[in-house]
Amino acid sequence: MPPLPPGSVIGILGGGQLGRMLAMAGAQLGFDVHIYDPDPRAPAARVAARHAAAPWEDEGAVHAFAARCAVVTYEWENVPETALQAAAGAAPLRPGARSLDLTRDRVTEKRFARDCGVSTVDFAAVDDADSLQAALARTGYPALLKTRRLGYDGKGQAWIRSAADTEAALAAMGGAPAILEAAADFARELSVVAARGADGAFAAWLPGENIHAGGILRETRAPAALSQAVRDEALRIARAIGEGMQHVGVLAVELFEMADGRLLLNEIAPRVHNTGHWTMDACACGQFEQHMRAVAGWPLGPAAAHSRAVMTNLIGADVDAWPALIAEPGARLHLYGKREARPGRKMGHVTRLTPI
Amino acid sequence: MPPLPPGSVIGILGGGQLGRMLAMAGAQLGFDVHIYDPDPRAPAARVAARHAAAPWEDEGAVHAFAARCAVVTYEWENVPETALQAAAGAAPLRPGARSLDLTRDRVTEKRFARDCGVSTVDFAAVDDADSLQAALARTGYPALLKTRRLGYDGKGQAWIRSAADTEAALAAMGGAPAILEAAADFARELSVVAARGADGAFAAWLPGENIHAGGILRETRAPAALSQAVRDEALRIARAIGEGMQHVGVLAVELFEMADGRLLLNEIAPRVHNTGHWTMDACACGQFEQHMRAVAGWPLGPAAAHSRAVMTNLIGADVDAWPALIAEPGARLHLYGKREARPGRKMGHVTRLTPI
Repeated sequence: MPPLPPGSVIGILGGGQLGRMLAMAGAQLGFDVHIYDPDPRAPAARVAARHAAAPWEDEGAVHAFAARCAVVTYEWENVPETALQAAAGAAPLRPGARSLDLTRDRVTEKRFARDCGVSTVDFAAVDDADSLQAALARTGYPALLKTRRLGYDGKGQAWIRSAADTEAALAAMGGAPAILEAAADFARELSVVAARGADGAFAAWLPGENIHAGGILRETRAPAALSQAVRDEALRIARAIGEGMQHVGVLAVELFEMADGRLLLNEIAPRVHNTGHWTMDACACGQFEQHMRAVAGWPLGPAAAHSRAVMTNLIGADVDAWPALIAEPGARLHLYGKREARPGRKMGHVTRLTPI
Repeated sequence: MPPLPPGSVIGILGGGQLGRMLAMAGAQLGFDVHIYDPDPRAPAARVAARHAAAPWEDEGAVHAFAARCAVVTYEWENVPETALQAAAGAAPLRPGARSLDLTRDRVTEKRFARDCGVSTVDFAAVDDADSLQAALARTGYPALLKTRRLGYDGKGQAWIRSAADTEAALAAMGGAPAILEAAADFARELSVVAARGADGAFAAWLPGENIHAGGILRETRAPAALSQAVRDEALRIARAIGEGMQHVGVLAVELFEMADGRLLLNEIAPRVHNTGHWTMDACACGQFEQHMRAVAGWPLGPAAAHSRAVMTNLIGADVDAWPALIAEPGARLHLYGKREARPGRKMGHVTRLTPI
């Protein structure tokens, strides 16, 4: 596929904040962006040329949406498979099905990472009480039980700290296939956000350090202070994963940095990622523009940072601090246009820059 | 008016590239942006929450549009006065009528500048052949005859290099009231883009140097290399003009730098300006965000530059170079989503950054 000319239509499945920031980045490059999202109040719809507000299950509507697009992408990987397939039947889907197939399921994802020469925590598939016992014998306590699919921001997860927790943890999975992961006694959580172009080119932003609380990302500090060896290894991992998926677009790898400097893969996101939001304000080409460049078949932009950044999520009522945030010089504010500040809901983020 | 809370609707009269970049900046801050523009294919409409595509003459439609907005602004000063009045009848208009009244007419504008203690080229009002002769006696040759109103990008202008040109120049005005301006034998064209907040705060980006050709801006280089004295004087002028207009929002002053270092005001734009496009990529807070902050009653953001910039307009067929531009590392590309690359039409711009 040759590079899409300006004026082409790029479709995005999903109209949350990631779709919203992708849509604006696409418009800056001269594309028309169409959004598919069942929610009539989807944040991305308010910055898009067109909004198809139909259910994910309406494959005809998805197909018709994609038929108007030169290429279709998605804001996150949990768009229903049937919708992705319906879209792929009418337009090129980027990133492709391989990126989704390899990351949709936590067991498949970790096996794939190991195939790429990337270490992970110990893990085992769990389908029932027996396999959970066998898995715990391998990982020891504490261990983390997660659904294999559709988990994000700490949902569908339960810690098992002793044998007394096993029954409740398994019940919390609601009968869904699960994975048990050994607790990683990590020193820091890092992530690498990177992009792979349609031409196979690779560009990574420098790794950031992430602070989570309650299973939700609170803060990314980037670039993280790292030894050259750790930085090189982090970038090697991102590249190996991107190549292995034959990915087109932005991807993120979340890593545990162990006390001895080893890096273990925690999770792959085959998409723009919250831990990459800092790149919008601190880098020549941020993650949203980069993703649109990649899916349009354009050359990748430069990932170099012109500033250091601390990105802080505004979660739920955090956003009520907006009068103070708008008065703070150097606080770059991004609000997502969501109407209701429910607890745990990502309402926006603020990035504070300092000279590099 | 207290600061508008996120989620408020900001209306923009005019949906060209300035409206488009304003709309995206407003959305980033969490506002819903509505566009009024008669053109169903207006570039800004494709990034806005709502588009009213009715004629400027339909005052009822303008009033209804403004009634849905918490504040209304405009992308340029040539929106018909009746439409501005209709909008102002339903919502606060920012910048206010005073900014427009003082800049709509080139004679009024220059008189106002002089009242603010700002020098201009010699000028005189021209209504007919007799007043043109009297004006030429004052300015000498060559001199520039312009319509007093509605001129931009070199339209409605005619050079008078000798007495033989007078008749044709006057005819080119089409009977409209005109102004004769002495030729300024300037060394450079500079501009200052600045903002004044609803609270009276003032913030200016550093002056840029502008290269025009055929009456159209081709390039802005910023920050311009200037002596401290010239820089201070340029910023003083912008501030005096902004204060004098009691302006709320971004404004630009175009200046002639004479060989002896004097600065003469050429033109005031009571709005975001092409010579400020570099600020989007090179500064913490660019002109479009700054304007939306000001009209929302928010504190102004920091105008400090993190990079040097050369901004080049893509005019007409220039945009056909997009395959080369997207492949150039460090070229920040902005395309406006216009369908047809007519000669003289601003299709986009590209900003090249270097470390400061």
